[in-house]
Amino acid sequence: MTERPGKSVKARVWTVEGGGARRRRDVLAAEEPLEIRLSAGGQRQSVAITMRTPGADFELAAGFLLGEGVIAARDEISSIAYCTDPDVDGAQQYNIVTVELRRPGLPDLAALNRHWTVTSACGVCGKASLAALQIRCPAPLPDGPAVDPATILGLPASLRAAQAQFDLSGGLHAAALFDAAGRLLALREDVGRHNALDKLIGWALLGGGLPLRDRIVLVSGRASYELAQKCVVAGAPILAAISAPSSLAVEVAQSFGMSLLGFVREARFNVYAGIERVAMENR
Amino acid sequence: MTERPGKSVKARVWTVEGGGARRRRDVLAAEEPLEIRLSAGGQRQSVAITMRTPGADFELAAGFLLGEGVIAARDEISSIAYCTDPDVDGAQQYNIVTVELRRPGLPDLAALNRHWTVTSACGVCGKASLAALQIRCPAPLPDGPAVDPATILGLPASLRAAQAQFDLSGGLHAAALFDAAGRLLALREDVGRHNALDKLIGWALLGGGLPLRDRIVLVSGRASYELAQKCVVAGAPILAAISAPSSLAVEVAQSFGMSLLGFVREARFNVYAGIERVAMENR
Repeated sequence: MTERPGKSVKARVWTVEGGGARRRRDVLAAEEPLEIRLSAGGQRQSVAITMRTPGADFELAAGFLLGEGVIAARDEISSIAYCTDPDVDGAQQYNIVTVELRRPGLPDLAALNRHWTVTSACGVCGKASLAALQIRCPAPLPDGPAVDPATILGLPASLRAAQAQFDLSGGLHAAALFDAAGRLLALREDVGRHNALDKLIGWALLGGGLPLRDRIVLVSGRASYELAQKCVVAGAPILAAISAPSSLAVEVAQSFGMSLLGFVREARFNVYAGIERVAMENR
Repeated sequence: MTERPGKSVKARVWTVEGGGARRRRDVLAAEEPLEIRLSAGGQRQSVAITMRTPGADFELAAGFLLGEGVIAARDEISSIAYCTDPDVDGAQQYNIVTVELRRPGLPDLAALNRHWTVTSACGVCGKASLAALQIRCPAPLPDGPAVDPATILGLPASLRAAQAQFDLSGGLHAAALFDAAGRLLALREDVGRHNALDKLIGWALLGGGLPLRDRIVLVSGRASYELAQKCVVAGAPILAAISAPSSLAVEVAQSFGMSLLGFVREARFNVYAGIERVAMENR
């Protein structure tokens, strides 16, 4: 196999400033397609293609399948591997991941195909989707943890500090996992924010760390329906976003008893659902 | 039909600050599913579900179909309408749009289904996708316009001023169209950045404004493969992004002779492809 693609790509750009232009070296966030294939009992099927930043691809595939309800636990996976088909040339082999399931045949994907006919989210229909989530996540999320506001206010700086080490391009979204004391446990990055979260949750799944009880998930941008849904499936009690949540993300959080925080900045944040997990005296 | 859903939703939130929490009214960016159905010669098929902000739904559907190569021109569409099926209840009727095509039957969607099995982008495979785009857009984009750097530097402020009127939630991405003198021609918003661009391009398509010759497209966030691809299909010579472009967006721009600008701020911007459209004396 040829060299594995990295998270960034070198480029030469022009910077236009003060009436002039200068040529300089720069770094771009890498974006490549990843095809996720399922295999079980000798059957094989391609289930998704996503534009992603190379790296943590096995975690991405695992997290994606969990979020879509194809698998519910780590032991349903027997192996995850890059394509080794000699007909597929070099670098492209790293753009195809096959997840082998421990079951006699492929699961029924017909019902899921509908969810995947989308452009931005796991396109499931408002109320129908909430009902479907309810079937997969029948119990509301457990109480706790109770997190100190000061801890929450410190999360964005921790995320930025960790991202600064990796993202020279300034083009990557991040999803990070913290414990209730605000310690960073893991950080994953991608050009797609849902991919970053899939990688993070896939990392927890493969490492035996699900459900994400007592953990805080922080995302670098906005919180959409899709991100909220993935966190509910992973059992995360608190989803915090540096930017705004959407109306449907708030609805999901309220329905499943998840705390949803938004506009988390240095001095303040908003609570859209589940304020009981914010430990405060004077409320 | 019941009341049409709006672009925002009222909510009550807690703001936590300085050791206390206060309850206040807020506005959230609305997010709802939109199902796009095709109809032709008595045949009907659902082709996509996208999580979008209600509003400009017909433009969104038209722009999406253009970007995906299902249609190439306005006159292929005979009508676009919301669902009026009495079995579909009230507000949900506004979440289903049917595009009626002027042709004896549905186009072959099998080849496209693969593109739609995605989470974030019109998941087409790196090199294969560039080749497919080349078939649809055989001629490189025409020369011009040559835009003054000062004009480009002024675009973000125009976008922000226009957005401030509409987006009280702070949760919407925007895509805007400018002429070469920097005059704002149209602005569309959405929780999904590709939806915002589909709405903008769909607006141009339905109004007879394609190709976007001599126009500048500005997007409020990052420029991904998907956004670059949509602009190439719409014939836009210049795509400017307030944030970073991805590696594949740059590749698309270079391949099709589109100018790609990124990190467009008050005082400077980067040029990743097509610097000849930036009118400068000392280069």
